[in-house]
Amino acid sequence: MASWLPIPKNSPFSLANIPFGIISTKSVSRVPAVAIGDYALNLSAFASSGGFAQLPAIQQHLDVFSQPTLNAFAALGRPVHRQVREYLQNVFRTETQFPEVLKDNAAAQKSALLPLLQVTNHVPMQIGDYTDFYAGLNHAYNIGVLFRGPDNALQPNYKHLPVGYHGRASSVVTSGTPLHRPHGQILANPAATPKVPTFSPCKRLDIELELAAFVSTPNDLGKPVPIEEAEDHIFGLVLMNDWSARDIQAWEYVPLGPFNAKNFGTTITPWVVLIDALEPFRTSGLEPGNRESLLPYLREKHAASAFDIALEVELTNKGGKPTTISKTNATNLLFSFPQMLTHHTIAGCNMNTGDLLGSGTISGTEPKTQGSLLEQTNGKNPLKLEDGSERLFLEDGDTVVLRGVAGSEGNYVGFGDCAGTILPAYPL
Amino acid sequence: MASWLPIPKNSPFSLANIPFGIISTKSVSRVPAVAIGDYALNLSAFASSGGFAQLPAIQQHLDVFSQPTLNAFAALGRPVHRQVREYLQNVFRTETQFPEVLKDNAAAQKSALLPLLQVTNHVPMQIGDYTDFYAGLNHAYNIGVLFRGPDNALQPNYKHLPVGYHGRASSVVTSGTPLHRPHGQILANPAATPKVPTFSPCKRLDIELELAAFVSTPNDLGKPVPIEEAEDHIFGLVLMNDWSARDIQAWEYVPLGPFNAKNFGTTITPWVVLIDALEPFRTSGLEPGNRESLLPYLREKHAASAFDIALEVELTNKGGKPTTISKTNATNLLFSFPQMLTHHTIAGCNMNTGDLLGSGTISGTEPKTQGSLLEQTNGKNPLKLEDGSERLFLEDGDTVVLRGVAGSEGNYVGFGDCAGTILPAYPL
Repeated sequence: MASWLPIPKNSPFSLANIPFGIISTKSVSRVPAVAIGDYALNLSAFASSGGFAQLPAIQQHLDVFSQPTLNAFAALGRPVHRQVREYLQNVFRTETQFPEVLKDNAAAQKSALLPLLQVTNHVPMQIGDYTDFYAGLNHAYNIGVLFRGPDNALQPNYKHLPVGYHGRASSVVTSGTPLHRPHGQILANPAATPKVPTFSPCKRLDIELELAAFVSTPNDLGKPVPIEEAEDHIFGLVLMNDWSARDIQAWEYVPLGPFNAKNFGTTITPWVVLIDALEPFRTSGLEPGNRESLLPYLREKHAASAFDIALEVELTNKGGKPTTISKTNATNLLFSFPQMLTHHTIAGCNMNTGDLLGSGTISGTEPKTQGSLLEQTNGKNPLKLEDGSERLFLEDGDTVVLRGVAGSEGNYVGFGDCAGTILPAYPL
Repeated sequence: MASWLPIPKNSPFSLANIPFGIISTKSVSRVPAVAIGDYALNLSAFASSGGFAQLPAIQQHLDVFSQPTLNAFAALGRPVHRQVREYLQNVFRTETQFPEVLKDNAAAQKSALLPLLQVTNHVPMQIGDYTDFYAGLNHAYNIGVLFRGPDNALQPNYKHLPVGYHGRASSVVTSGTPLHRPHGQILANPAATPKVPTFSPCKRLDIELELAAFVSTPNDLGKPVPIEEAEDHIFGLVLMNDWSARDIQAWEYVPLGPFNAKNFGTTITPWVVLIDALEPFRTSGLEPGNRESLLPYLREKHAASAFDIALEVELTNKGGKPTTISKTNATNLLFSFPQMLTHHTIAGCNMNTGDLLGSGTISGTEPKTQGSLLEQTNGKNPLKLEDGSERLFLEDGDTVVLRGVAGSEGNYVGFGDCAGTILPAYPL
């Protein structure tokens, strides 16, 4: 697919993608947009210029493009998302059926096409609840080995259900938002008796490389979503960095799970890549989605329940050169997002439009393929950065960028940067 | 304090209380209200009739009383809540300074005073995030004994920080909402190898008796709330039943904590009792709030960090007589809500108006003072109900009512009923 709009060959936002987000500029308050090449298409301005006049499916719902979040658009459901995306692909195609809408319409281009460098991105949805799963089997195994040894690395439940926990929605931020190093209780000497914590800034600050899914259509309290319907409740995916304070976590997490170690900030990419855009990259995960070892409520129709998305983690010392510290793939998941969503609702929990589901940390099995520093260094074996410095965990001023992309040059379906910089601990 | 309005002596909503909620009727959509005796005062209608003309503090903010949640009112901050409550106490007092507002104003009474029996209650706030703590020391100890024996009942962190976890906001419902028995994965025979779960409706359905606090004013991401300011971020308290599926919980909870065992429903009372209304009942909790064993960031100015609130749990077999199965007191907490809120923010987590903080299950040390069935029966020693039937856990059709009240007859500051009935599992 070629476009009349110049799109760099390495852009994650090729014509094959068309991800949705929320943007603002100095003169435009938050509005829905799609990213294409180096531009954002302001969908509010585009709709006002009559851009959707040729698309009957959306005529009754044009108000969704004047909302400050994508929730109203997402709630319209997957058939509408699909039609809008395919229509916009048509509009941007060299041989568009609708040249008068944008290609040959200088006024519409001027009002609606904005250089990405000039827009501010925002968390794209009003997030009601955020849940983080633990479906990265290699990560769960690696962490389990560190805590319990290789024979008991995975808990007995691990392969039967997507283990997950409720996270903190309020502190989900968009790429580029700096975060203060968290303070907290830390057990400086775990071997001492009695165990008395100290109070200090986190000394083992880590990242977690994840994918995450936004929920589109809700289900009622008490009514589970069957596995065969679950994918249609998912709007699309983003990349996510689940920043983690390992020393705070180690002290606080028994018996109810991680809390302050995770709730000081979670960074996501601002552009939601629709499941339809990822469909060509569907493939098997670590085990088939229809495996017979699963209880029937979690068994998918097809084996191919993952997406082939190349992932990487880049770490940059303040003022230094970027170092790619990890490369892996989104196939390293044991459960799919539809399985996570169905499991989440099986006891009756209601999902709302805008709810966010994290995959859990995605790690491979080889060196330099892990999605967290803890797995790479075990707090003992430092990583070497390009500028010669070393890292066990993050230092103040470090910037971490996650990237993920499917497809090939000229037709990338990618997420853009998921970036965050660590500020010194907030002075108390 | 006597009122010109007839208030039953045993009403939890005496003139000393004035709790805030959200009501609707057949002809009135959701509006803020206060409960007094057997009536609700519709604050939107009251404001429209000029009821607040004598209260300068609220003049610029009367729109908060036409909102469908209490969030906008709560966000005005504690000094405003205090003035509104005291003004309304004055309006209802026999010797009111403002008889023209309601006492001698038949038209205003007709438009704004509604019998409680004719109104529908709603979840009073838009809840962004819900967090459940574990500050009921006796409960934590009792559960710890069941799982690990008396020598290791409490984890090493327990007395140093308010242990908590993120809960599910979407499924918080108001008193009276029935809930389906949840389905889930259960390990029928924990001793068997390998451990293979079955899928079934929960067989060990339980309650948890808790208090919960709503957040009024927010804090920014990255900026902790100092302990001395924390109480002013709390709007007020409700009673809460944290329904728990013990068999689902036992299988799913390692290593990240409870998930589906808790997220199918959490019931709260609809009337928010302000901290100011509870102030006369302030007393010591299980340990002083300023104890030196706490890290300084959690140390309160004063020892008295709890409230003397009598609590009870009533269980009714379908069509049977109510049985009071537990009586305890809210003093059975090791940490206060200000301590929970400060700890929640210490790593930088931002709290929003409407966030809900649960105390954890409140239990005493004597028989029939525990806040959960698991503690009372251990799944082995049945409770006897008034109608002769027995319970290890809840059966379909059972209704549980939590009640809590401070003060004495004629001046009760109470929460009203926190009620819920268990429906059969939803047919899949």
